[in-house]
Amino acid sequence: MGQKVVFIGAGNLATQLGKALYTAGNEIVQVFSRNIDHARQLARQLESSAIDDIRQIELSADCYIFALKDDALPAIAAQMPTTDGVWIHTAGSLPVSVLSEYKEDVGVLYPLQTFSKSRNVSFSDIPIFIEANNSATQQLIESLARSISEEVHVLSGEKRKYLHLAAVFACNFTNHFYTLAEEILQKEHIPFDVLKPLIRETADKVMERSPREAQTGPAVRFDEKVMQRQVELLSNDTLRKLYWMVSNSIHDHSL
Amino acid sequence: MGQKVVFIGAGNLATQLGKALYTAGNEIVQVFSRNIDHARQLARQLESSAIDDIRQIELSADCYIFALKDDALPAIAAQMPTTDGVWIHTAGSLPVSVLSEYKEDVGVLYPLQTFSKSRNVSFSDIPIFIEANNSATQQLIESLARSISEEVHVLSGEKRKYLHLAAVFACNFTNHFYTLAEEILQKEHIPFDVLKPLIRETADKVMERSPREAQTGPAVRFDEKVMQRQVELLSNDTLRKLYWMVSNSIHDHSL
Repeated sequence: MGQKVVFIGAGNLATQLGKALYTAGNEIVQVFSRNIDHARQLARQLESSAIDDIRQIELSADCYIFALKDDALPAIAAQMPTTDGVWIHTAGSLPVSVLSEYKEDVGVLYPLQTFSKSRNVSFSDIPIFIEANNSATQQLIESLARSISEEVHVLSGEKRKYLHLAAVFACNFTNHFYTLAEEILQKEHIPFDVLKPLIRETADKVMERSPREAQTGPAVRFDEKVMQRQVELLSNDTLRKLYWMVSNSIHDHSL
Repeated sequence: MGQKVVFIGAGNLATQLGKALYTAGNEIVQVFSRNIDHARQLARQLESSAIDDIRQIELSADCYIFALKDDALPAIAAQMPTTDGVWIHTAGSLPVSVLSEYKEDVGVLYPLQTFSKSRNVSFSDIPIFIEANNSATQQLIESLARSISEEVHVLSGEKRKYLHLAAVFACNFTNHFYTLAEEILQKEHIPFDVLKPLIRETADKVMERSPREAQTGPAVRFDEKVMQRQVELLSNDTLRKLYWMVSNSIHDHSL
């Protein structure tokens, strides 16, 4: 019942999606990366073979999954030989049409999660958003997605790009403020560990209420003296500007 | 073994700290708030009595816990009658000395967590940072803190203010980016629920690795086209400025 899959790309997303598809019984026939070491590292985990020359690509797979930096995708797609199967990209911000110039049956499989090579995640509750340029292709992508997740939704590229934007705010930007917090503590020789219960509770809180309702702290209660004192502790103008910008935005969004 | 405690303030922190101290066997003899309804609402939950006139305060308690907006603390402290016991404030950014003008035995009990009235939290793993102006007072505050938490640390006010700053970044700012993400999705009629596995994983990830190592997304891999496309989706200049500011900061902090 599994499908024959080729991965184009061997980064964070390819690694975790590849492992999930492999574990679900799909066959990962090949892993391409311009860096052969990266291709080999992933291929080894998927009982697959590694290539760094796109012309050597296996032509008879069911799915070709592009898991590349968005900037790199068009150039690699243009170099791809003519193959069987469907071409699928995994980019939140790119339309399905970036592939249709080169291939008839194309689609998107966008898992809404943050992936690192060395941290395994359970795919079963990860929402996967799919799109395709025809219904047979959509069915194939849907069955592939359903082999790993119970949360598969069809979503247009127009909406997907907003979803990707929201994910950047909720994950990457959020994680950056963890990073800045860690930096502040490091200078004072306070271990980051003390923040962990707070970070966990901040995330847990929005599982049951809107983040707007969950907000606390000096900015939302507009405790100006605290904000003034805090901004003076920051080590440079960029951080001070960022502090005011986020604090004012919190206040503007308060209930 | 419990202590007799008076709460000055009936907000989020007073509510959760009051409940924890009450459950741990301390007696909450009185709750003061300038808003008598707020005082009553909390007093009811703590088998306590409510007042809105600071002159009616019970004089023979062991601890007087000030849980007020920082801006309001000095004025209320100045109006307090002479009492027995120790005076304790709960503010991350204020020195212990804001109370010592009015009272001999003073200290700080700062629980590092985000509190809302209607969401109960378990105090046992919440780090509590204490400070006092003499060792007998420190012992009393420590025993009070240990009645509710296993993570009690002595920390100077100099360091505590950096801890509070880090907490604002890791909690309030982080939560604000959840809020902005929710706003982006609302406009597209996509439920906030789809982000929950991502929010959970983003927090879980930093339980085991540094947030700097955990970072993913367009800014850290400097995928300029994605960033350019994303910024165009934002509905106003403030958000666009914020997007670039955070993205550049992510890039500057990348490994």
